[in-house]
Amino acid sequence: MSMSESVNLLQVTKDARGVVTLTLNDPARFNALGSEMLAALQEALNGLAGDDTVRVVVLAGAGKAFCAGHNLKDMAAHPDLAWYQQLFTQCSRMMLSLHQLPVPVIARVHGMATAAGCQLVAQCDLAVAAEGATFATSGIHYGLFCATPSVPLVRNVPVKRAMEMLLTGDFIDAQTALREGLVNRVVPLDALDAEVERLVQSIVEKPRAAVTMGKALVYRQRELGLEAAYQIAGQTMAVNMMDEAAQEGARAFAEKRKPGWKT
Amino acid sequence: MSMSESVNLLQVTKDARGVVTLTLNDPARFNALGSEMLAALQEALNGLAGDDTVRVVVLAGAGKAFCAGHNLKDMAAHPDLAWYQQLFTQCSRMMLSLHQLPVPVIARVHGMATAAGCQLVAQCDLAVAAEGATFATSGIHYGLFCATPSVPLVRNVPVKRAMEMLLTGDFIDAQTALREGLVNRVVPLDALDAEVERLVQSIVEKPRAAVTMGKALVYRQRELGLEAAYQIAGQTMAVNMMDEAAQEGARAFAEKRKPGWKT
Amino acid sequence: MSMSESVNLLQVTKDARGVVTLTLNDPARFNALGSEMLAALQEALNGLAGDDTVRVVVLAGAGKAFCAGHNLKDMAAHPDLAWYQQLFTQCSRMMLSLHQLPVPVIARVHGMATAAGCQLVAQCDLAVAAEGATFATSGIHYGLFCATPSVPLVRNVPVKRAMEMLLTGDFIDAQTALREGLVNRVVPLDALDAEVERLVQSIVEKPRAAVTMGKALVYRQRELGLEAAYQIAGQTMAVNMMDEAAQEGARAFAEKRKPGWKT
Repeated sequence: MSMSESVNLLQVTKDARGVVTLTLNDPARFNALGSEMLAALQEALNGLAGDDTVRVVVLAGAGKAFCAGHNLKDMAAHPDLAWYQQLFTQCSRMMLSLHQLPVPVIARVHGMATAAGCQLVAQCDLAVAAEGATFATSGIHYGLFCATPSVPLVRNVPVKRAMEMLLTGDFIDAQTALREGLVNRVVPLDALDAEVERLVQSIVEKPRAAVTMGKALVYRQRELGLEAAYQIAGQTMAVNMMDEAAQEGARAFAEKRKPGWKT
Repeated sequence: MSMSESVNLLQVTKDARGVVTLTLNDPARFNALGSEMLAALQEALNGLAGDDTVRVVVLAGAGKAFCAGHNLKDMAAHPDLAWYQQLFTQCSRMMLSLHQLPVPVIARVHGMATAAGCQLVAQCDLAVAAEGATFATSGIHYGLFCATPSVPLVRNVPVKRAMEMLLTGDFIDAQTALREGLVNRVVPLDALDAEVERLVQSIVEKPRAAVTMGKALVYRQRELGLEAAYQIAGQTMAVNMMDEAAQEGARAFAEKRKPGWKT
Repeated sequence: MSMSESVNLLQVTKDARGVVTLTLNDPARFNALGSEMLAALQEALNGLAGDDTVRVVVLAGAGKAFCAGHNLKDMAAHPDLAWYQQLFTQCSRMMLSLHQLPVPVIARVHGMATAAGCQLVAQCDLAVAAEGATFATSGIHYGLFCATPSVPLVRNVPVKRAMEMLLTGDFIDAQTALREGLVNRVVPLDALDAEVERLVQSIVEKPRAAVTMGKALVYRQRELGLEAAYQIAGQTMAVNMMDEAAQEGARAFAEKRKPGWKT
């Protein structure tokens, strides 16, 4: 695959505020996460990870579906353990890159999100769904339990719901996804971009240092016992407070005015 | 207790699909988990664990209640630490056997589920409740905090709700249990078997290997940090993909036909 | 600060049942958790931890707000890493003291609970909110990510909701807090004390030993893997059962009468 095809497979835009939109752009295959798509995402995320001008990432899909997960047709064509291991390693590395990205990632889910597509939603920090969006860990319908999608899924929704999705492969609708914690908001499709923008704008108004320290801290402390969690959280907060923007914020609070920081 | 009494205490049926129903059958004692009942369950689960023809287990209760938990009358008659230790060890081993059973276990909750009976519901992989079912960790009403029931309870429902149930001993109704993640579905009593059957049928249509790999993986990865979780999940998925049924599933997907596997 | 000022900053009352009410009493600063307030809370909690006559603690706030979190004005006046480290260490120690207190702590939330005030609610074992109560981890509005509040928050509510609160700083209302697991009950303001009292009364009717063993067990087992959790829970339950109150409870159950214990 040439670079221009790779560019086409994943559209990357960035606005003046540092809002990057990554659009999965393979509508004919419902934005399936084939090896090329995963490589394009990994390359983009690697670039964003070191770019201090990026403030927030929106992950979207072109065409009818958000993302249909892995490309089962490709997988049928490669009945080889090493090939599968490489594919899932590649996919998990990309998912972990979303997690490790310094800035928040918001899933913009306008349609179907299945298998690794549902995993993408679960792995993002925030998610906004259109009313018609649907979610399933559907691999089991083809004899393939959605093992890697189960990783962020059980960290988002109650375990019995996760088990039901994983064992039945059945779809849940957007309202159910909202109720169970898989997405933050559900809005009509024509309000989807405005709702994503509301979250985006809220984040870009905050100082970047506080946001990136915070995202990393939340996930790190969540894996620790309570005392260890408090220890690193307290240290993070003290360091955050020494940041110029936080100093300005605290002064602005004391002086009852809006903070005048450079975010 | 003779084998026939044991058989009576726990009814075990198995249909042609490999669907096993375990029915607690001590209605006079609201299916209390006395030592004999626990032994009967343990013996049944030990047998099921090694039986490759079993596809799914339904756990039900005969009579008015689903299960009233431990037999407090027996416990009052044995004021002895070693006796209690043995009882809770026996009970926890049985609960862990439900967890470790290769195939999914569905609780069919038609009535009251209290103390270790509520724990049974929480420990099962899936649960369907009748509208009149009620749930409580009621030991505290008798001075005995439901410590072992708290283990699966806090892994099912938000921690403040679990604490409220554990400290007050108060009942919650089926709709509350649904909202909080303790059960998957609530239906009228006369639709309970049909709703359980829907989940059962969905599971038996899937390849057994994928289901058993998946159940084990979900619980194992859930106790790990995110990176370690992804590592074992990716490996599980690659191995799963080498299974003949998954190969057939992927080919069927590519060829736009139904998979023709032997589940 | 003199002892009487400290007493004024935190009102401590105790009734004949052993119900202690701690009332944050700095309405002019919305009960901000400045260093003196934290010291007063720590001193009170230290005293309660060793007092066997205490049965339950209610944490309340005087004036319009429940608690507005840290005192940003103070923080602006001390741009010093060591000062901040000391403050967050002091605050986290107090939060851990709520967690480690042998008896349950109930947050009585009548108004705004922001930043470390929202953390207080999350860190308590139970929480009852008035309909008009609001909750936010608002530090990010001033450039300070609510890192320490995130510790109990992600242990109370689904992770995407926690992230949304932490990144946007936006308020959620009481009904939302209820739905997401941050509080146990929402009632009209004029019914708030009666609702808190219902929980209080339920707890004081139970034997103290069972309640304190139970609270400690729940949090300890929650941080362990399932097998280790069952092991300590079973041991706790056996020890609990040897308590005279539990023996009386079991006998009372067997004899179909109310337990006649001294709680």
